[in-house]
Amino acid sequence: MSVSLSKNFTDMKPSAVREILKVTNDPGMIAFAGGSPDSHAFPCAEVRAVAAEILERDPVSALVYGVSEGYEPLRQTVSKWLKKRSDIGTDDDTVIITAGGTQVMDIATRILTSPGDTVICEEPSFIGSLNCFRSHGCRLAGVPIEADGMDIAALERTVKANPGAKFIYTIPNFQNPGGTTMSLEKRKALYRVALENGLAILEDDPYGFLRVDGRDVPSIKSLDTHGIVFYAGSFSKILAPGIRVAYAVVPKSAAGAFTIGKQVSDVHTGVLNQMIVSRWFDEYDVDAHIEQIRKIYRRKLDLMCRCLDEYCRGFITYVRPQGGLFIWAKLPDEVDMLEYVNALLKERVAVVPGSAFMTDDTAPCSHIRLNFSTPCDEDIVKGVKIMGSVAKRFKK
Amino acid sequence: MSVSLSKNFTDMKPSAVREILKVTNDPGMIAFAGGSPDSHAFPCAEVRAVAAEILERDPVSALVYGVSEGYEPLRQTVSKWLKKRSDIGTDDDTVIITAGGTQVMDIATRILTSPGDTVICEEPSFIGSLNCFRSHGCRLAGVPIEADGMDIAALERTVKANPGAKFIYTIPNFQNPGGTTMSLEKRKALYRVALENGLAILEDDPYGFLRVDGRDVPSIKSLDTHGIVFYAGSFSKILAPGIRVAYAVVPKSAAGAFTIGKQVSDVHTGVLNQMIVSRWFDEYDVDAHIEQIRKIYRRKLDLMCRCLDEYCRGFITYVRPQGGLFIWAKLPDEVDMLEYVNALLKERVAVVPGSAFMTDDTAPCSHIRLNFSTPCDEDIVKGVKIMGSVAKRFKK
Repeated sequence: MSVSLSKNFTDMKPSAVREILKVTNDPGMIAFAGGSPDSHAFPCAEVRAVAAEILERDPVSALVYGVSEGYEPLRQTVSKWLKKRSDIGTDDDTVIITAGGTQVMDIATRILTSPGDTVICEEPSFIGSLNCFRSHGCRLAGVPIEADGMDIAALERTVKANPGAKFIYTIPNFQNPGGTTMSLEKRKALYRVALENGLAILEDDPYGFLRVDGRDVPSIKSLDTHGIVFYAGSFSKILAPGIRVAYAVVPKSAAGAFTIGKQVSDVHTGVLNQMIVSRWFDEYDVDAHIEQIRKIYRRKLDLMCRCLDEYCRGFITYVRPQGGLFIWAKLPDEVDMLEYVNALLKERVAVVPGSAFMTDDTAPCSHIRLNFSTPCDEDIVKGVKIMGSVAKRFKK
Repeated sequence: MSVSLSKNFTDMKPSAVREILKVTNDPGMIAFAGGSPDSHAFPCAEVRAVAAEILERDPVSALVYGVSEGYEPLRQTVSKWLKKRSDIGTDDDTVIITAGGTQVMDIATRILTSPGDTVICEEPSFIGSLNCFRSHGCRLAGVPIEADGMDIAALERTVKANPGAKFIYTIPNFQNPGGTTMSLEKRKALYRVALENGLAILEDDPYGFLRVDGRDVPSIKSLDTHGIVFYAGSFSKILAPGIRVAYAVVPKSAAGAFTIGKQVSDVHTGVLNQMIVSRWFDEYDVDAHIEQIRKIYRRKLDLMCRCLDEYCRGFITYVRPQGGLFIWAKLPDEVDMLEYVNALLKERVAVVPGSAFMTDDTAPCSHIRLNFSTPCDEDIVKGVKIMGSVAKRFKK
């Protein structure tokens, strides 16, 4: 006998893509498939110092139950910092601390949708969020992205074709996996489309602070005069992912429901974790730290681009992203992408098949996603060289 | 304009009970309404020592992404420890680490139910879990508890009346709020009823190690020869709640879905948090620590019972629990329970109205829940004295 599972979960069947993803973390693999920050970018000594101070001076506060909305000093720090750096948040918004950015998507989906509802998303988009929406029984309607973000005409058609859709999910900065950054004009257009059609917007911005070229574009949340945007930010990429601290900026009208959603999910985010982030802001210069890690990623992005240009010329094409952690690399149309990915795996180079990021992961796809933050410089060179030599077997 | 919320959340309206719960945490209140462990029971020095050691020796491991199933050394430690202490877990089970016990209820509900499905629960039962089930759109069917646990005849009637119900939720040890412990005979009967009717069992056991009198009763999970029991245990009550580390013992047939459920919820539990618990087991005698905190709770339970007997005789009746953190106290039938609770609040004594724990929190209820772990000894005496003096106004 075995337990019978909800349809939302039995529908999430193993796919060719998932079978590949299983082996991408094997030891000895050159890790172009991950999404972890460079571990040299972690402020280890600073975390050690503030953790020691907290557990010396105030261990009980770090160990008792907290409130679902989050540790109050951290909420206030995040609120002020976001306002100053990105003009995000008004008196009609509430900052709620979550256990990582994915939890913002999860709680927003819980409170905004019912099974069978449609979520409109970019195509391609982050597999973790797509699976989250799927796990709530949501249908996905994909809108293609262009070099400057969502195809707005396609968005309008998709909204018309899906009356009753609940929200638009977007990663406007250094999109995962597409690498694109949405222009201000398109952000405004997307906001207008949402407003006119009674849709909420879920703006996922884990990479916003990791810009390596060009100038910041205002967030959609900063345009939110009507309280329809849920903004998700995270400390995973600027402090460290294992600490699991992120935040949502939520319209006040939805803050009560969001808090209940947090409460029934896990009561509250670990208090020690939140205090570490809070004290890190108090004791150190977080903005200067961000400048440091931007330098690391600029250097690694440059390196991977140079290697692709040298070793994979005529086989892989890509548009250099202005930030983030990923390059969205296109193979020649005539190449079987999954065959190439499997051939790379045999040579111990792990990349993510682009189809993993599609609303229908069985549809044809010529892209792969390459991560340049996790591997060391040496592995970037070695891995792209292997990509080039394997490519030779696929060229006509 | 405001966003439109899912029906499961708009249905969770403010109630008289929730209005009371809002003020129970006000500073200056004597806290009989909480559920926190005694902060003197936290192993602060031990947490400080292992955290320092982890962040000194292996900070990167504590800060990188972890896997959804949990930190492997902790999974193995928990697995061995549960087997030895409680005969829980077989080769057909998987231990998965969660961010607190509530997350086990949440993920189990996600993977086992669809909106509209029925969950069978004890009546009264833990409000946090009931709200979790409600947030997933589940209907609750309550089964009264007796001094030795669920009324099995009523359970059988409820199961018959609710064909297609998905699982039975039970807190067999020192039930929250009822304080009752289910007898072995009833555990066996409950298991049989579930098995015969194709129901899963969600066994919530946060207090199991906090026995102060009598002998342990085998868990329902230890009787699970057919892989239908999801067991939830936690470090919130034996280490500290703010650390948010708990675990599920899940039948292998559901482990894949449970892991996906964890992944889409929050990717993984904080790695530092898990490493702290893991190293705590390696470096210290956890079983001896548990013996120490049992002594603390035995003393505090004794104290509250003596005070109730002295100051509230003839007004409050209760059955002394064999462990846990709560006394389920009955007022005379003719007393308006909410009026008494509000009168106590005015005197700065916070207790939880029993109706908070009912499937229908507007139905009449003569009980209140008293917590004896959070308040200090002095407050226990002072608070129960106030309860007695307020009671005089309510006596006929």
